Amino acid sequence: MIAEVFIELKKGVMDAEGEAVKKALRLLGFKKVKGVSSVKVYRIEIDTNSKEEAEREVREMCEKLLANPVIQNYRIVLKE
Amino acid sequence: MIAEVFIELKKGVMDAEGEAVKKALRLLGFKKVKGVSSVKVYRIEIDTNSKEEAEREVREMCEKLLANPVIQNYRIVLKE
Repeated sequence: MIAEVFIELKKGVMDAEGEAVKKALRLLGFKKVKGVSSVKVYRIEIDTNSKEEAEREVREMCEKLLANPVIQNYRIVLKE
Repeated sequence: MIAEVFIELKKGVMDAEGEAVKKALRLLGFKKVKGVSSVKVYRIEIDTNSKEEAEREVREMCEKLLANPVIQNYRIVLKE
């Protein structure tokens, strides 16, 4: 099974990368860009057929390694 | 309009970050992890109501700044 983990900054946390990209795009002439935010995605292949098991494992991975719960939110999307 | 740009490495290009995450997860005891790949997403807010214009602008942004066409593929998803 494939799990996709979307990790993004919580509201109110400064997104330095997004800001830098926005500035660069506007310098390049893309004046219609109003905002940019950056999201990190990990696509994880797990050796199980159980959605419940996959979700439980991936949630634990997020809490132990992938996400920083102080400043980031995560969302898990499971695919067959 | 919001455009999400998904940028990932082409097949055959070494994904150092994904490999590092995979190793770390396995060291933490997640033995069922078979592979990890990393994807970068930029969520771009554009001041237009035209899907065609948004798509054209974002494609140009990818080609000029966001993606490296030698090693990366990108995919654009438009949202109202």
